[in-house]
Amino acid sequence: MTPPEPFDTSVLRLPEGPVRLSEHDTAATVGYSGEKADAEASLAAIGVELADLQERLWARRTVGDERRVLLVLQGMDTSGKGGVIRKALGLVDPQGLQITAFKAPTEEELQHDFLWRIRKALPVPGHIGVFDRSHYEDVLAARVRGLVDPEELERRYDAIVEFERELVHQGVTVVKCFLHMSAVEQGERLLKRLDNPDKHWKYAPSDVDDRALWSSYQEAYEVALERTNHHAAPWHLVPADRKWLRNLAVAALLRDTLALMGLEWPRADFDVEAERQRLAEVEIQ
Amino acid sequence: MTPPEPFDTSVLRLPEGPVRLSEHDTAATVGYSGEKADAEASLAAIGVELADLQERLWARRTVGDERRVLLVLQGMDTSGKGGVIRKALGLVDPQGLQITAFKAPTEEELQHDFLWRIRKALPVPGHIGVFDRSHYEDVLAARVRGLVDPEELERRYDAIVEFERELVHQGVTVVKCFLHMSAVEQGERLLKRLDNPDKHWKYAPSDVDDRALWSSYQEAYEVALERTNHHAAPWHLVPADRKWLRNLAVAALLRDTLALMGLEWPRADFDVEAERQRLAEVEIQ
Repeated sequence: MTPPEPFDTSVLRLPEGPVRLSEHDTAATVGYSGEKADAEASLAAIGVELADLQERLWARRTVGDERRVLLVLQGMDTSGKGGVIRKALGLVDPQGLQITAFKAPTEEELQHDFLWRIRKALPVPGHIGVFDRSHYEDVLAARVRGLVDPEELERRYDAIVEFERELVHQGVTVVKCFLHMSAVEQGERLLKRLDNPDKHWKYAPSDVDDRALWSSYQEAYEVALERTNHHAAPWHLVPADRKWLRNLAVAALLRDTLALMGLEWPRADFDVEAERQRLAEVEIQ
Repeated sequence: MTPPEPFDTSVLRLPEGPVRLSEHDTAATVGYSGEKADAEASLAAIGVELADLQERLWARRTVGDERRVLLVLQGMDTSGKGGVIRKALGLVDPQGLQITAFKAPTEEELQHDFLWRIRKALPVPGHIGVFDRSHYEDVLAARVRGLVDPEELERRYDAIVEFERELVHQGVTVVKCFLHMSAVEQGERLLKRLDNPDKHWKYAPSDVDDRALWSSYQEAYEVALERTNHHAAPWHLVPADRKWLRNLAVAALLRDTLALMGLEWPRADFDVEAERQRLAEVEIQ
């Protein structure tokens, strides 16, 4: 096993209290002691540790360990939620992942409480669940677009905290990441998509509509982050203008999360010597 | 794009007609022009092609293309179904995968036709579905263990062919792989699991019970392979004694399958110039 890569993920943790996003540098390389040129090797090294830890989590479900992880990814369009999944989650065995991308709610989903569809997508024991957008859209897009009245919005912040506390109680370690990107960076990324015909499928005219509401979204994020930054499931602010730093940060965060779980390989629940004997005695024609 | 790696997957295709598994070398390196030392680099190169093709499949679902792929993995315990998923499927974006491991049917599943639980796990458009064991267990374990009467078994071979034809008609490309491993190799792999306490979780005493039925299983495979080796969804025999060859073979097979689908990047369904203009005009406070 290689020694842990020098990424201090504690700096990603959002302090409790009022949130001013403009005070957090979207291009920061905080936490990482290397440079861009080192990032690929560091990500691979973290990947080795992460894959080992994830296999332990996966193995432990076979002995009734109910623990699991839920990674919540939030961020504006192009901030890299999909990129993180490809690059950081791509480091582990895909059998142990449960990835859900939440779009605008369907008619059926709208007839239920906003957490209904979320509960249905929760990871089962031994898995790492990944939410590409999440229940937070119900206090973000819902707020910016005025889809619900202020009372319901208020209720939702509290309901989310309550819900996440319940998850933690059930053995779900909740890791929440806001991919914090600048408006300038988003503009460049959207333009790049328009410039390359092979990337047109990633572009939707509604992306510009949302971009026009940038300030409202930032404000909605500030309120949501403050109201839901509770001890059981705190928020992490991931500087997202540099893709390599963003991927490293989330991978390191997952590694540290799993490392803290103390995941021992399960012990045999059978007589090893007896099995060796049985195996030796099997005759194959 | 690198030129295609020299893996001729056509040799993996099982010829129609009676099947004699003993006539197929489980340690063969057929199809691959390199050696073990080259395998890692070749797998990475195939991974680049495969990831590109998979992203195209994924992109095309956004324009209503309903095509998808279903990889069916069958093989005895330790033949490497999980290893293939980790090493070959691990090369693509995990968002585009739908992996299902089928265990012994539950009480509820047994109350339905054997294809009921299979249908529920089918990949949706744009995805690569992976079955770690499948509906074939219902003519393999079911036959060896005498779980169903001969008439039902007969019905099932035909029902499977009919079912797979239906899938192909619906836009599902079905890729079936039998991981063909020798009994000697299995014995060594099971012993290795017993010798390493960190691998005990992968071992179950029932593995030896199944091993004792090796010949019956090989015979059940021969019948199943012959009866279901139809044109719409043919079988591939993957020599599985060498893990590196096995992983390369399945990765190459997936690459070739996707390459044949002619997956063009979707064209924009919006006015690119107008969007460029809109984007330039957005003002962010």
